[in-house]
Amino acid sequence: MTDFEFWSPTYFAFGKGKETCTGELVRRFGGHKALLHYGGESAVRSGLIGRVKESLSSADVEFVELGGVKPNPRSSLVEEGVRLALGNKVDFVLAVGGGSVIDSSKAIAIGAANGGEWRKFYVGREVKVRPAIPAALSVGVVLTIAAAGSEASTNSVVNLEPENLKRAAGGNILRPKFAVMNPELTTTLPPFQTACGLADMFAHICERYFTPTKDVELTDALCEALMRTIVSEGAKVMANPDDYQARASIMWAGTLAHNDLCGVGRVQDWASHGIEHELSALYDCAHGAGLAVVMPAWMTYVHKSDTARFARFARNVFGVGLGVSDEDAALEGIAAFRAWLKSLGLPLTFAELGAKKEDIPILVKTLNLNGNTLGGIMPLNEADVEAIYNLCNA
Amino acid sequence: MTDFEFWSPTYFAFGKGKETCTGELVRRFGGHKALLHYGGESAVRSGLIGRVKESLSSADVEFVELGGVKPNPRSSLVEEGVRLALGNKVDFVLAVGGGSVIDSSKAIAIGAANGGEWRKFYVGREVKVRPAIPAALSVGVVLTIAAAGSEASTNSVVNLEPENLKRAAGGNILRPKFAVMNPELTTTLPPFQTACGLADMFAHICERYFTPTKDVELTDALCEALMRTIVSEGAKVMANPDDYQARASIMWAGTLAHNDLCGVGRVQDWASHGIEHELSALYDCAHGAGLAVVMPAWMTYVHKSDTARFARFARNVFGVGLGVSDEDAALEGIAAFRAWLKSLGLPLTFAELGAKKEDIPILVKTLNLNGNTLGGIMPLNEADVEAIYNLCNA
Repeated sequence: MTDFEFWSPTYFAFGKGKETCTGELVRRFGGHKALLHYGGESAVRSGLIGRVKESLSSADVEFVELGGVKPNPRSSLVEEGVRLALGNKVDFVLAVGGGSVIDSSKAIAIGAANGGEWRKFYVGREVKVRPAIPAALSVGVVLTIAAAGSEASTNSVVNLEPENLKRAAGGNILRPKFAVMNPELTTTLPPFQTACGLADMFAHICERYFTPTKDVELTDALCEALMRTIVSEGAKVMANPDDYQARASIMWAGTLAHNDLCGVGRVQDWASHGIEHELSALYDCAHGAGLAVVMPAWMTYVHKSDTARFARFARNVFGVGLGVSDEDAALEGIAAFRAWLKSLGLPLTFAELGAKKEDIPILVKTLNLNGNTLGGIMPLNEADVEAIYNLCNA
Repeated sequence: MTDFEFWSPTYFAFGKGKETCTGELVRRFGGHKALLHYGGESAVRSGLIGRVKESLSSADVEFVELGGVKPNPRSSLVEEGVRLALGNKVDFVLAVGGGSVIDSSKAIAIGAANGGEWRKFYVGREVKVRPAIPAALSVGVVLTIAAAGSEASTNSVVNLEPENLKRAAGGNILRPKFAVMNPELTTTLPPFQTACGLADMFAHICERYFTPTKDVELTDALCEALMRTIVSEGAKVMANPDDYQARASIMWAGTLAHNDLCGVGRVQDWASHGIEHELSALYDCAHGAGLAVVMPAWMTYVHKSDTARFARFARNVFGVGLGVSDEDAALEGIAAFRAWLKSLGLPLTFAELGAKKEDIPILVKTLNLNGNTLGGIMPLNEADVEAIYNLCNA
C-alpha cells in the first residue's frame, strides 16, 4: 500500500423522491443563485426539471438554466455556460443529469470562478499531472444515470472543439458538494444506456484494480466485491428495468467505483480510458460502449505483465479459472468479462462500434503520447497502443 | 435498501510520517488555537507528542494541552477539557490517540461550543434518537490505534461519573475534519490492545451486517470483504507486529468499518454494543474485550431470527458451513468467530473478562431499557438481555 490522501466530502441524499430536497441542499452548501444545467428534453418532459425548479424556488434559490448537454460534452456549450454564469453572477452550478452534464457543469464551475478561464486545465489524460485549479464554484448534482461516478469524483472530461479532443481536468476542488440519488429516475433509461453505465463503472474499478502496487489486500477485496455486485445486480436491471433494489445497488456502486475508495494506496492504470477517449472523441460513440471494446483488448495485451493478478480477477470476480494455471485462468477471466459485456448488448469490436481500422494512425496521433507512456500495470508506448487498437479491430 | 443520507467528509492523510502535516491540516480546517488532547505518557515518551507540537508550531497554531485520557474516557476529564477550552478560547480540538482520546475530544468540542453544556447530549444508547447537537468545535485526529473508527465516525462514547454510565452522543457534526493515519505508530502496541482493536472493528461491521433489511447486496458484499480482510490481515499483525502492510490494511479497515460506508441503506443493530457498554462501565474492561465476550453470546441467542443471514456470514466470511443446512452453517459460523477471537488471545467468558454472574441484575438495570427494546435483527427486551448475559457467563 502506498501513502495516500483521501477526501470524499460529497453529501449523498439517496432514495425515492429525494430530488425534492435539491433546493435545500443548494442552500446548505452556500448557493443562492444557481446555473441549472441539464441535457435533452427528456428530463423536462419527465417532469424532473420541473420538480427541481420547484424545489429551488421553495428554498429561495434563484436560477438561470442551460440545457442541451450532449454525451461527450462539448466545449462550445461550456463556453456558453461560463458566459451565462458570469453574466448572471451565479454562485452555484446544479447539474441534473449523468456524467456528461456533471462534467460540463464542473467545467463551467471552473470557468465562472476564474474569469472565464477553464480550458487550460483540460490538458492531459487522467494519468498526467495537470495544473492545479485555483478556484471553482460549488457544484451539486441530481443524478439520472448510474454510470460515470462524476457525482463524487475529482474529474471532468470535456470534448474540446474544434480539435475534437476529449481531455480531462481533475482535483478535489471538483468534487460535488452534494449528490441527490433517486434510483427511480433511472428505470426509464434505454437498455443500451444502462449497459454502457455498467461497463463504465466496472472499468473505473478495473483502472484501479490492475495495479503494480503490492499489498493492497483491503482495497482489492472492496474492488472485487463491487465488481461482483455490478455483474450480479447488473443482470437484474437488464432483465427487469423496474427492479428498484437492483437499480439502487447499481447506482450506489457507480458512485463508489469512482470516488476513489477503490483506488487509495495504489498506483492506478487508466490506459484503457485514455485509449477509449480517442474513440468517443472521433466517433462520438458512448464512452461505456467504447470501453467495452477497449478493455478486453487491453487486458489481452497486458495480462502477461501480471498474470497472477489477472488470474485472481478471473477467480474472485467471475468465479472461473479454478483449478487451472494462472495463465489459463487469466485468459478465462478475460473471456468471461467479454461474455458479460456481450450479454449486456454492448459492442466488442471496432466494426460493432462503428470504428475503422484505417483511423488507427489518427487515434494514436491524437492520443499524443509525445514519447511518454500510458498506464500503470504495463506502461504503454505508441506501438503498444497501436497494437491494442488493432486487437479491438480483430 | 432503505433511503439514506451519507456524508463522510473527513480528510485522510495516510502513511509514514504523516503526523508532520498535523499543523498544516489544523490550519486548513480553520483552526488557530487548539486543545491538544491525549492519553498516557507513552505518546510523550515515544516522541509523537513532540513531533505533533513541532508541526503545530511550524504552522503557527497555538495550543494548550491536556493529557491523561483513560480507556472508557471519564466525564471528569471532559469537564476539565471544556474549562480549559473555554478559558483559553481554543477553536479546535486535536486528538492524539485512539478511540477514547477522540471520543473525549468530541465531548470537549461539544461543551466548548455550547457554553459548557455537553452531558445532556449523552443520553442514550446508539440505537435511540438523541437531542441534536447544535454546535461543536472542529476536531482533528492523529490516530495511534486501529480500533474504534472514531476518527471518521459520528459517535462519541463517554463514561459519565459518578453514576458510571457509559453513554453515547452522535451526529454528523461530530465527524472529525481530518485524520492523520500513520500505521507505523501502531506497531508498538501491546498484542492485547491490537486484538481488542480487531474485535472492535469487526463488531462495528457486524452491528450493520446483521440487519432485518432485505436487498442490501452491495453493502453486504462490502461488509464481507472488510470482515474477511480483518481476519486475514489481523492474523498477520498478531504474528508479526512490525508488518507495516498488514498494519496499514487494518488501520484503514477500522476506519471504513465505522464511517458508515457499511451501514447505509439498512436498519442497524447495535444491541451488542449496548450490552457491552454496561460491562466496560462496571468493570472498566477494554471495550474490544467486552465485545469478544458479548458478540458470540448475542449471535447464539438471536441467530434463529434470521438463520439464512447467519449462514451467509459463516460461508462468506469464515468459509465454513458449506454443504450443510443453514442452521448448522450458522452455528459453525458462530463457532468460527469464537475461535478467531480466541486465536487473538481475547476473553470469551465472564470469568475470563473478570465479570461476575451475580452482577447481571445490575447490568440489566443500568442498561435502562425502560420497556423499550434493543437491537434491529431481533428486538431484545430485558429478559432477552439477561439471557444473553447468562450466555456470556456460560
